Amino acid sequence: MILDKINSPKDLKKIKTIDKYKLAEEIRKIIIDQCLETGGHLSSNLGVVELTIALYSAIDLPKDKVIWDVGHQIYTHKLLTGRKDKFKTLRQKGGISGFPKTAESKYDSFDTGHSSTSISAALGMARARDILKKDENIYAVIGDGAITGGMALEALNDTGISDTDITIILNDNEMSISKNTGGFSKFLSKLRTRKLYIKSNNKIKRITKKVPLGNQIIKGVEWSKKRIKGLIIKNMFFENIGFTYLGPVDGHNIEAMIDLFNRSKNIHGPKLIHVITKKGKGYKKAEDNPGKYHMTSGKEPKTKTNYSKVMGEKLVKLAEKDEKIVAITAAMEDGTGLCEFKNKYPNRFFDVEIAEQHALTMAAGMASNGLKPVIPIYSSFLQRGYDQIIHDIALQKLPVVICVDRAGIVGNDGETHQGILDLSFLNTVPNLTVMAPKNYKELEMMLEYALKQNKPIAIRYPRGEENYKFKKNKKIDSKAEIISKGEDVTILAIGKMVGTAMKVRDKLLKDKIKAEVINARFLKPLDIDKVQKSFDKTKLLITIEDNIVSSGFGEKVKYSIKENGKIITLGYSDKFIGHAKVEEIEKEYKLDEESIYKIIKENIK
Amino acid sequence: MILDKINSPKDLKKIKTIDKYKLAEEIRKIIIDQCLETGGHLSSNLGVVELTIALYSAIDLPKDKVIWDVGHQIYTHKLLTGRKDKFKTLRQKGGISGFPKTAESKYDSFDTGHSSTSISAALGMARARDILKKDENIYAVIGDGAITGGMALEALNDTGISDTDITIILNDNEMSISKNTGGFSKFLSKLRTRKLYIKSNNKIKRITKKVPLGNQIIKGVEWSKKRIKGLIIKNMFFENIGFTYLGPVDGHNIEAMIDLFNRSKNIHGPKLIHVITKKGKGYKKAEDNPGKYHMTSGKEPKTKTNYSKVMGEKLVKLAEKDEKIVAITAAMEDGTGLCEFKNKYPNRFFDVEIAEQHALTMAAGMASNGLKPVIPIYSSFLQRGYDQIIHDIALQKLPVVICVDRAGIVGNDGETHQGILDLSFLNTVPNLTVMAPKNYKELEMMLEYALKQNKPIAIRYPRGEENYKFKKNKKIDSKAEIISKGEDVTILAIGKMVGTAMKVRDKLLKDKIKAEVINARFLKPLDIDKVQKSFDKTKLLITIEDNIVSSGFGEKVKYSIKENGKIITLGYSDKFIGHAKVEEIEKEYKLDEESIYKIIKENIK
Repeated sequence: MILDKINSPKDLKKIKTIDKYKLAEEIRKIIIDQCLETGGHLSSNLGVVELTIALYSAIDLPKDKVIWDVGHQIYTHKLLTGRKDKFKTLRQKGGISGFPKTAESKYDSFDTGHSSTSISAALGMARARDILKKDENIYAVIGDGAITGGMALEALNDTGISDTDITIILNDNEMSISKNTGGFSKFLSKLRTRKLYIKSNNKIKRITKKVPLGNQIIKGVEWSKKRIKGLIIKNMFFENIGFTYLGPVDGHNIEAMIDLFNRSKNIHGPKLIHVITKKGKGYKKAEDNPGKYHMTSGKEPKTKTNYSKVMGEKLVKLAEKDEKIVAITAAMEDGTGLCEFKNKYPNRFFDVEIAEQHALTMAAGMASNGLKPVIPIYSSFLQRGYDQIIHDIALQKLPVVICVDRAGIVGNDGETHQGILDLSFLNTVPNLTVMAPKNYKELEMMLEYALKQNKPIAIRYPRGEENYKFKKNKKIDSKAEIISKGEDVTILAIGKMVGTAMKVRDKLLKDKIKAEVINARFLKPLDIDKVQKSFDKTKLLITIEDNIVSSGFGEKVKYSIKENGKIITLGYSDKFIGHAKVEEIEKEYKLDEESIYKIIKENIK
Repeated sequence: MILDKINSPKDLKKIKTIDKYKLAEEIRKIIIDQCLETGGHLSSNLGVVELTIALYSAIDLPKDKVIWDVGHQIYTHKLLTGRKDKFKTLRQKGGISGFPKTAESKYDSFDTGHSSTSISAALGMARARDILKKDENIYAVIGDGAITGGMALEALNDTGISDTDITIILNDNEMSISKNTGGFSKFLSKLRTRKLYIKSNNKIKRITKKVPLGNQIIKGVEWSKKRIKGLIIKNMFFENIGFTYLGPVDGHNIEAMIDLFNRSKNIHGPKLIHVITKKGKGYKKAEDNPGKYHMTSGKEPKTKTNYSKVMGEKLVKLAEKDEKIVAITAAMEDGTGLCEFKNKYPNRFFDVEIAEQHALTMAAGMASNGLKPVIPIYSSFLQRGYDQIIHDIALQKLPVVICVDRAGIVGNDGETHQGILDLSFLNTVPNLTVMAPKNYKELEMMLEYALKQNKPIAIRYPRGEENYKFKKNKKIDSKAEIISKGEDVTILAIGKMVGTAMKVRDKLLKDKIKAEVINARFLKPLDIDKVQKSFDKTKLLITIEDNIVSSGFGEKVKYSIKENGKIITLGYSDKFIGHAKVEEIEKEYKLDEESIYKIIKENIK
């Protein structure tokens, strides 16, 4: 295997071009096998195999820095930077992360996970380099989906005038996770039709680009630009805002890319290199359906349904009867369960691309003009729209229903994707109602309830399946729900943790301990009276949430209640939680059935 | 006066063009007088007098909807929409707001306050109109500063392909609050040099643009476009992303604007009208120095210094000794006290325009590559960067110092600008240290301390002046500070409220009540031991914060402490707080010296 010879990116410089293509095929096979075995981001990784090899052949790592936007496409990067032996542990507890982690390797320059951060980070690094008089090259690799995210556009704007050496590599695979739809992508497709950059045989003299910029150097740079003029296809937009635009180049032609990356080093200032890649490249099923193969779940057992699908299906039913209901997504149509809605009501479905801020304020605009928008967003991505929830939705009390998907622990995606802060940050928003269902049926009921309330409401629910078969589901009435009567201990849980609470209750019953289980349903407003009554009786209150306790559910309950016995607040501690299976994390943080059972046993009088 | 005849925008249609210019002069005078008397946003309002008159002459309010981005430029709007008699109450308690408020008038279509929201809101309204088969026209008026905010760019991207009737009026005054610097503004300045739109005398047949769009109608629109072809100056960027670009037009030429607004109604789909205005127009001092006259403080007594200035001056001193210190602002150089820093260290100063998200992640990039970035942002605008604080700064524990300016009540700007959520939302961020100084000296000490810690830190401080003369300022050592010893009651305060606590303490002393006053200094980590000891002694604990108690300081203290007596948590309640003077609001929410004194007297044993 060629890969056997690659222990660091430097080794790439020792092998012939033809072997780089062989290496690409080897890597491709490893990625496919791994993703089908244990799950992972398949399509995007297959798309950048040659791009990674070409870039790392042209630059000097770890001195030079590459920031991979979103970060889920760095499998080739990990294989080339000394982690091929650990690759089988990808995304597993104790193993390597599916994202870049500075704590994991000196070759990982910056942690990413959410979209559209790379240009800002790269510009910051470049400006630091200039001030500290260092001379490394800095690259941001960003997809055509991510580049339409607001902060990436802000960063482009600032980079354009920065007069600093920085290279944006636009990885244009003609789609983000869902299909790109915006004006910017229409514009990119015009660029794509231009003639591809082909390796030139003329040797071009390398020009130094060191700061400070004397007149002589500037002239040199001008001269260099002129010499490669034929290679630079002028682009009004990027050129207008201050970039030198290079490309487009075939993202699967290693030679052409190496040549362009090498030449681009001679050009001073901000540069944008436009690379055309194919998502899922080399794996027929993924090429044909890159959205479906965006993420594979590996050998995890397939499940019939999940919270996202239940939400989507219920929304379709409700929308049948009410024309005012519309659905909005920020490039997460599939993940949030909206495919059926889109097919059935294409005119009432809006995919705004990766643009959570715009999505939420647009929802506010819609609500202010008579519609009932429902907008599912993953918990950790909703952090992007925090100001819009406050300033555009809650302040005007507009009836927007925010479905907070992937709340709680999501598992193998790790720190950047865990949804363990939303109960805390949503609790700070005046005028907002915050609910969490205990199971599918309650999610359906809450969605129906929310759409009748004519005020802003957030409903948060986890990734995956419901975890307990409840006997019945009482009507939603703005109050907490007592599920099981008992005298010995009060277990107050929210969301999916109500299922866990019931399992604990069943277990306690075998020891003749009678637990009163209360389903909070609402974080805000909190139905404290029902809890107080129960606590006054049992003198032992356990709160359970799949969120940090800090500023969260448990803290709020403890703050609101009159202490009349012992209160134990269970939830995640105030820190970031790495990748592992949901059950593994729950166990580690003592939020599994067994641990909670033990805690109660130890504290019961 | 012409204004006497204008009781609603409809009356504008009854007056001659020459009278509209007279009206503009009358309004200009009223605005200047008002701003000099009671304070307000002078420059921006003087810039849009003619624009507002022209737009409201061409459209049909309140059926048509206009969303004013940022919203501080709506004084002419208020004067034309039935609020001229209340204009003297502008920004005063009980009076009209300095921003659009849907609750205040049917002519206010959408609440704004923060930058860059208008296009998203307008697009939402337009899509709602289409679905509900209504036919109003929808306008977003946005400045050249605000349009570079990330969410505005996201919205442009989505609007470009929306195929819906919507008009973006780009109010191009060649600057945001500070001077625009980015690539996009360079690009706009190229547009400005084009020939201005001059009213054409040819009558153009009006074309219906009603949905649904049959072939015939499309042809009609094409024809219309052709007829006014000479008037449309092609612009690659806006046209490329899907807009019909019209302009530039002189924003002080009422006739030309009315003509263009009327004609634009015949063009189907998203349109962008480029209007060139002059900030401060008609008031020489403001024309010459629009930044300085962005906001006037009226007849409020001038103060020697304030927290922002103190921060800026200290930062200049620290930066003298440490080259790694850099300062970043999102278009708030003046407001955040960075002018001197900019002058002294131009190469270490970065104004990224209105782009809080990019600013924070760029700071993270800088910190990751060896710098010590300090980034002052107003509390309510920091909400925009919530995800970036979590995902880009805190996750990697990068040493970025965030100076949270305008924390607490800011006063007359009202709901959108009060900084009463930051203690709550910053408390949710793992790895972040959160501090608040009691006075200027402590701010200086905290800034110096923060820059030595090599980890992410937020320091929050209020608008305006320090409120108490403390005898001494102990060294910062990650702990709370006992300022005054006592046995009868523990007063635990944070930030400026420590000054208030001391005044209360002085007052209580006259009644022979000895209060122990503790300056928390840190919200996170909270030094609960010192508080517990005091509480165990006094059995009465009062917490005071200028933040909502919900998820805030008081809630955290009550959660963390072992109850051993009575705890009273004083702070703002979980709701939005309107405009009034700081002291008036403090009184209303019982956070003034007198109210707190009374509360303690009532609760002391």
